[in-house]
Amino acid sequence: MEKFHQSLEKKLKVFGIENKTIELYPTCKFVTVVDQRALPHLFEKLTIDNWKDMSKAITDMVVRGAPLIGVSGAAAMALAMKESVEDGFIIKAASHIKQCRPTAVNLAWAVDRVVKALLKAPLEDREELAWTQAKLILKEDENMCRNIGEFFAEIMEQKFLQTGRPLRILTHCNAGWLATVNWGTALSGLYLAKRKGIPFEVFADETRPRLQGCLTVWELSHEEIPVTLITDNAGGLLMQRGGIDLVITGADRIASNGDVANKVGTYLKALAAFDNKVPFYVAAPISTFDWNIQSGEQICIEERDADEVRKISGINKKGKLTTVRITDSDTPVWNPGFDITPSRLVTGFVTERGVILPTQLCDYRQASIGAMSKEDV
Amino acid sequence: MEKFHQSLEKKLKVFGIENKTIELYPTCKFVTVVDQRALPHLFEKLTIDNWKDMSKAITDMVVRGAPLIGVSGAAAMALAMKESVEDGFIIKAASHIKQCRPTAVNLAWAVDRVVKALLKAPLEDREELAWTQAKLILKEDENMCRNIGEFFAEIMEQKFLQTGRPLRILTHCNAGWLATVNWGTALSGLYLAKRKGIPFEVFADETRPRLQGCLTVWELSHEEIPVTLITDNAGGLLMQRGGIDLVITGADRIASNGDVANKVGTYLKALAAFDNKVPFYVAAPISTFDWNIQSGEQICIEERDADEVRKISGINKKGKLTTVRITDSDTPVWNPGFDITPSRLVTGFVTERGVILPTQLCDYRQASIGAMSKEDV
Repeated sequence: MEKFHQSLEKKLKVFGIENKTIELYPTCKFVTVVDQRALPHLFEKLTIDNWKDMSKAITDMVVRGAPLIGVSGAAAMALAMKESVEDGFIIKAASHIKQCRPTAVNLAWAVDRVVKALLKAPLEDREELAWTQAKLILKEDENMCRNIGEFFAEIMEQKFLQTGRPLRILTHCNAGWLATVNWGTALSGLYLAKRKGIPFEVFADETRPRLQGCLTVWELSHEEIPVTLITDNAGGLLMQRGGIDLVITGADRIASNGDVANKVGTYLKALAAFDNKVPFYVAAPISTFDWNIQSGEQICIEERDADEVRKISGINKKGKLTTVRITDSDTPVWNPGFDITPSRLVTGFVTERGVILPTQLCDYRQASIGAMSKEDV
Repeated sequence: MEKFHQSLEKKLKVFGIENKTIELYPTCKFVTVVDQRALPHLFEKLTIDNWKDMSKAITDMVVRGAPLIGVSGAAAMALAMKESVEDGFIIKAASHIKQCRPTAVNLAWAVDRVVKALLKAPLEDREELAWTQAKLILKEDENMCRNIGEFFAEIMEQKFLQTGRPLRILTHCNAGWLATVNWGTALSGLYLAKRKGIPFEVFADETRPRLQGCLTVWELSHEEIPVTLITDNAGGLLMQRGGIDLVITGADRIASNGDVANKVGTYLKALAAFDNKVPFYVAAPISTFDWNIQSGEQICIEERDADEVRKISGINKKGKLTTVRITDSDTPVWNPGFDITPSRLVTGFVTERGVILPTQLCDYRQASIGAMSKEDV
């Protein structure tokens, strides 16, 4: 049992080496990050030892995914302490870091949290405190993802006991460890189920236009989880022919009624799951629920650049990363980033506090709003 | 009215020039075909003056699409008559041509039809007769597509009168003039509606893995029909937000109960159309109905090469057609060519004889089988 618990503490493997998307080294005062720009074609880790480079890594999307950006912002603040621990500098640096990805709510939240702690502390304690705070935020994210995973692994275990044969799981986009510090949200349960010995294989939608499904394939392969890449068109037939036992996706925002905004195409898979009686789960931290929004209709959908559809990057014959254009450079394109999966198609929400059924959301909302009011007081 | 009728006789335009995918010139004894291999990036027409080159064009997929392959086979027979009109040679040539695409039912059907006519005729009439037969098969296909189009254009007209604003049409894959001699099946109605002055715009699914949606964009653009390319993931949201009035697709095979085998991904769009009360039409000639098959479950789905998913071709920075790999060359892939859209999701079948409702299929089947038995007698 001791060995089992120890194995659960492992970081995720790439080429046999254990990794997190970001790691903090307070004693030596540097940070390492996985450079996500060339994935899945090229895996590189960068060592960053100053706050300006860390800020640039956030701007240039070396790091991506809301939770990871938050931790990166806190790390940038810790690195900034090498330059100065004065109030004025702290405020200036914080403002600069937050501007690196101005729409990322997690970034501002994490940076402000570190700043608040620093300004209260004596000057001589500030550098150590900044690293402690960054480590705390990192650890919180890791634990949250791990807890989400525990609950989905339990669902998988139940399904395995029920079917008595290896499970087939479908996922859309990449809600894996690359988008968080470790474990991921949708994929966390798969990593934990693997460690618990539950037999299963995964089908990964390629997820056009940005092909994040290839990141999912890359992540799972390195953990030796059997995974098959399919086009976004193929998942319907796969469910029709009885090829899927469970669907698991992440979520970008969830409305009060349980409508889910997630990567465009999620809705089509939820429809097919419902039509073929396949359970459809959404994995997300509680913070993803937006109690101010009544339903999915109120969620504004981001429209993205047309070139994401017109152009595709990959490796050419010479092994070089190349971009090709699949249509004329002026072909009109409509490229929404997300769609809305109505609550009625969702089997359950897998959160860090347990699985919430769509029918339980109303009660849950009232409890959450009550808790928030108390905190405010 | 005369002008209107005349305009309906037009061939489809590319760069302002009218074209068909194949054209026969009996007097000069040659054939021209649109080379479909490099489309939509490069438009080229080839002149072919001997039956061996025509056979090679079939093998190499210079021409594609069941109806077009049939006409091409007949044209190859006509060209073969330049070499010899003897019985032995006719049989040998026919056998060679049919082997160019052995699974294409239309090819064998068309070649056999020409051979049957030739063997009955005196030697001196054979060359002219072969061209006449090829022209007849070509004309029949063209008329059939045109008739399908007339019926869908009528549906569009009704919808336009009902809504009073420009229509928004969604289509999947390419069932256009490139897959037939002229007009197409799903797209035929759009070309005719345009000529009748019905205002509309089209959204084209890109249709991974082979991106036939880019062919649809190319076809429609050259006819000055407004068209927007979307990923296969985006159509669900588009319908959710009220952006589509009608969906039209082609079909590869239709079972007796109305279940439709068509390009993979069609089922997902049919589900979304049904969920959002958008009419979903399937355009196909009567010959697409397979009365020997009870339901979609009995239809065997072709699994295609993994590299169709792993690799994508497009134009690189230097303007050269290049193939890139989006994932490891050994990534497991499942690549089905088709899926099944259950009859319950189909609003109507648009055929050359009119629109058939799924509920009318049973009667229609009995009438068709009756007619076939009579023909056999």
